[in-house]
Amino acid sequence: MQTTVGEWSILLKGNLEGDASGIITHPAKIEEAGEGAISFIASNKYKHFAYTTRASALIVGNDFEAEKEIHAALIRVEQPYLSFTQVLGKFNRLFDDLIGTEEPTFIHDSASIGSDAYIGAFSYIGKNAELGDNVKIFPHVFIGENSIVDDGSILFSGVKVYPGSIIGKSCVIHSGAVIGSDGFGFVPQPDRSYLKVPQLGNVVIEEDVEIGANTTIDRATMGSTRVHKGTKLDNLVHVAHNVEIGAQTVIAAQTGISGSTRIGNHCMIGGQVGFVGHIEIADESRINAQSGVSKSIREPGKAWNGAPAFEYTASLRSQSVFRNLPDLEKRMRQLERLK
Amino acid sequence: MQTTVGEWSILLKGNLEGDASGIITHPAKIEEAGEGAISFIASNKYKHFAYTTRASALIVGNDFEAEKEIHAALIRVEQPYLSFTQVLGKFNRLFDDLIGTEEPTFIHDSASIGSDAYIGAFSYIGKNAELGDNVKIFPHVFIGENSIVDDGSILFSGVKVYPGSIIGKSCVIHSGAVIGSDGFGFVPQPDRSYLKVPQLGNVVIEEDVEIGANTTIDRATMGSTRVHKGTKLDNLVHVAHNVEIGAQTVIAAQTGISGSTRIGNHCMIGGQVGFVGHIEIADESRINAQSGVSKSIREPGKAWNGAPAFEYTASLRSQSVFRNLPDLEKRMRQLERLK
Amino acid sequence: MQTTVGEWSILLKGNLEGDASGIITHPAKIEEAGEGAISFIASNKYKHFAYTTRASALIVGNDFEAEKEIHAALIRVEQPYLSFTQVLGKFNRLFDDLIGTEEPTFIHDSASIGSDAYIGAFSYIGKNAELGDNVKIFPHVFIGENSIVDDGSILFSGVKVYPGSIIGKSCVIHSGAVIGSDGFGFVPQPDRSYLKVPQLGNVVIEEDVEIGANTTIDRATMGSTRVHKGTKLDNLVHVAHNVEIGAQTVIAAQTGISGSTRIGNHCMIGGQVGFVGHIEIADESRINAQSGVSKSIREPGKAWNGAPAFEYTASLRSQSVFRNLPDLEKRMRQLERLK
Repeated sequence: MQTTVGEWSILLKGNLEGDASGIITHPAKIEEAGEGAISFIASNKYKHFAYTTRASALIVGNDFEAEKEIHAALIRVEQPYLSFTQVLGKFNRLFDDLIGTEEPTFIHDSASIGSDAYIGAFSYIGKNAELGDNVKIFPHVFIGENSIVDDGSILFSGVKVYPGSIIGKSCVIHSGAVIGSDGFGFVPQPDRSYLKVPQLGNVVIEEDVEIGANTTIDRATMGSTRVHKGTKLDNLVHVAHNVEIGAQTVIAAQTGISGSTRIGNHCMIGGQVGFVGHIEIADESRINAQSGVSKSIREPGKAWNGAPAFEYTASLRSQSVFRNLPDLEKRMRQLERLK
Repeated sequence: MQTTVGEWSILLKGNLEGDASGIITHPAKIEEAGEGAISFIASNKYKHFAYTTRASALIVGNDFEAEKEIHAALIRVEQPYLSFTQVLGKFNRLFDDLIGTEEPTFIHDSASIGSDAYIGAFSYIGKNAELGDNVKIFPHVFIGENSIVDDGSILFSGVKVYPGSIIGKSCVIHSGAVIGSDGFGFVPQPDRSYLKVPQLGNVVIEEDVEIGANTTIDRATMGSTRVHKGTKLDNLVHVAHNVEIGAQTVIAAQTGISGSTRIGNHCMIGGQVGFVGHIEIADESRINAQSGVSKSIREPGKAWNGAPAFEYTASLRSQSVFRNLPDLEKRMRQLERLK
Repeated sequence: MQTTVGEWSILLKGNLEGDASGIITHPAKIEEAGEGAISFIASNKYKHFAYTTRASALIVGNDFEAEKEIHAALIRVEQPYLSFTQVLGKFNRLFDDLIGTEEPTFIHDSASIGSDAYIGAFSYIGKNAELGDNVKIFPHVFIGENSIVDDGSILFSGVKVYPGSIIGKSCVIHSGAVIGSDGFGFVPQPDRSYLKVPQLGNVVIEEDVEIGANTTIDRATMGSTRVHKGTKLDNLVHVAHNVEIGAQTVIAAQTGISGSTRIGNHCMIGGQVGFVGHIEIADESRINAQSGVSKSIREPGKAWNGAPAFEYTASLRSQSVFRNLPDLEKRMRQLERLK
């Protein structure tokens, strides 16, 4: 794709300082940007690169003040990172042109497939499954019987969807993710063996949800394990049966949520966090990485840290004293000697 | 499936109070149960739902005392949750009717397959592999050469079984699980590169074991990595080479067990627990979620918590003081000022 | 494979004590070794087995002193474990004989495949993909368009390689690993939805890297997520976008590395460790299992522990006092009563 600095400035509704005719061939990080690149500076930490970069265009904030000469043309905007994200979108490989069915596939006679769909080779579409318009099913995907994948969703290679799952519009599910596996429920028997609790429910993923690679979402015992719209799960996340995750919540990699726990809307959850089962997390909660959440969080909008987790700044203070525990004990011994 | 309240009461050997002719169409959680549903109450926490539910039948304990009028017919039993699990089993989708081989598959000429097996499309059955009777192999499963899958086991879509693995009778292995990958063993060399230690052993899974989605079990360097009968592993669990997990042990999601560690029988292990290598965990140990077990546990039947883990209640007490560490330090400073 | 004790002694450049004509049929752990086995003793902890084992040959150190009669022939070498690793290598199942293409596969017309390659059934080789000589692609592997897999690399069943990834020579990638999935980047919008940041970069895996089962490596937003040569990643590891992992570093299972973090060369990182994003870890750092690394580590060659991590021995001391925190508080109360 070849464009000009001027065209980008117009597209981003920016104010241009410099030569509008410069050629742009690709986006780049400021540290790596050379001739033909469009890049950005969104924080002062990176400002010093402005004076040395050979990039052809630089997206900066309206309040950016150049202290030295800059080689690049400047495109001033309100939110440089947001504008640059739009630039990336223009260069992004989309799958709109990926249409049709490769061979071989296994598509049950009773399955229905919308228009402009892509079904990659070695994909399996089960009995009565329904795929919407513009759905992109990459190779090695398994769609179990009676499952639904709504319009515009993309399932990358190797996604496994157990029977009866429902995936909303415009979702993105990455390779190796498993949707709808059996919840982990067993009843101990008198002979100490475990009787499996049948898992009759399903998984419902609402629209605009992204699910990371090798993440697993178990189906409900009864009813649905549910991920509400606009929520984003990173890689290797575990979502147990009957969990409900609210809308527009973000969960980083390797976090695990135990059975029947409900996470609110607009939460931000770090990586490797663990939630016990049967608790509720209020909207807009922020949970620091590696925390262990063992109780319900009732008050919305607060930050939490630690295992077990408690209020964020208090937890940081405890962690800070923890580092000096041997010293604390030594001081204790000194005082005891005095008594 | 349409049945009557009376039929369920007989099947569960319960005592019926109410109309035996009521129609039952499905099981449901008490919070969601409506006309036609059979539900249950196993704890007082849910008892209040009894008076408002529109369920047609309610399984309750023999000692359940109704304080108000109840719409549902009551089926009194000794263990309501166990009885309800039996109800779920009756409604469960079984795979007994899933028989035969879909096309295309890759089945080596030398592989043997028992009666009433199901081999889903795009499955790969390697050289000399042996599949028992009633085995259900879903699409995209890989069975490496010389592997054995015994009678009645179910491998869901995308399970990968490295060569030489042995899977016992009546096992359930969920999508994306990897059985028999190379153990993680390397010898540092004088030039600082790592020489791979060849992994010649295998994995043995005994009967009635369930393995969660995307769980990984490495094969032994020599001998076998072994999971004993009746044990249940949740999703995203890591089992390293030469590990041995005892019988009827339950391990929750995202737990990791390092090489050569032996877990006992009848243990209960929470999620995100880590075990160092080359230790032994006594029978009936209970390990709390997110614990880090760094030493052998010799005494059976005890509970453990924390990272590093120590005795459960002592650990909870330390965690409790941890929350007040800043206060403790402040009090120390006050005492020091007095001295 | 049948060989003699004398042949092994010559191969290992060892000094033989005992009968050179004894037949060796397999390697075994000393605890399990019987007639026909070659085994080893590398630590005093296992020395007592020497006097009871029925193994036919025993690899021991040059300084090994027998205190009782030993049934096995002894092969004395400088480094017994290294020599035994060589023995294992001789018995190892190699894939050199695995050549040719099984049916069915999907190989795009524009893809190129080197000599002596193996392409397992149901594998997908995308547009313009390049596979080198002696590459072994097991069944159900997905190689996205424009990806490169260099000479001698082995991708086990079910590996997924997103478009544009580069995998160097002699790599081993285990089942279920995902290479090149979208980095986890979203920009919050005024309406509280998240705008996806397009991920235009790729993943570069240098030569002689091993990647464990179900490990996930996200591609860079721009530029490359990179794993340098000779590095070994265990199972279920998460590597976020724009991460760089140095050469000959070893990372144990279930560790997670957040975006843009750079890990040095020759590091040793335990299991279940978490790294926050945008930090740098010096060469030869050793990070204990379950640590949480929240800041850059500038000084090379040091050991770290805890969450948040600090210097290893100091951290162990703090953990030790932590166990006695209730006692510490009690002593505090006693002192306060005296004041």
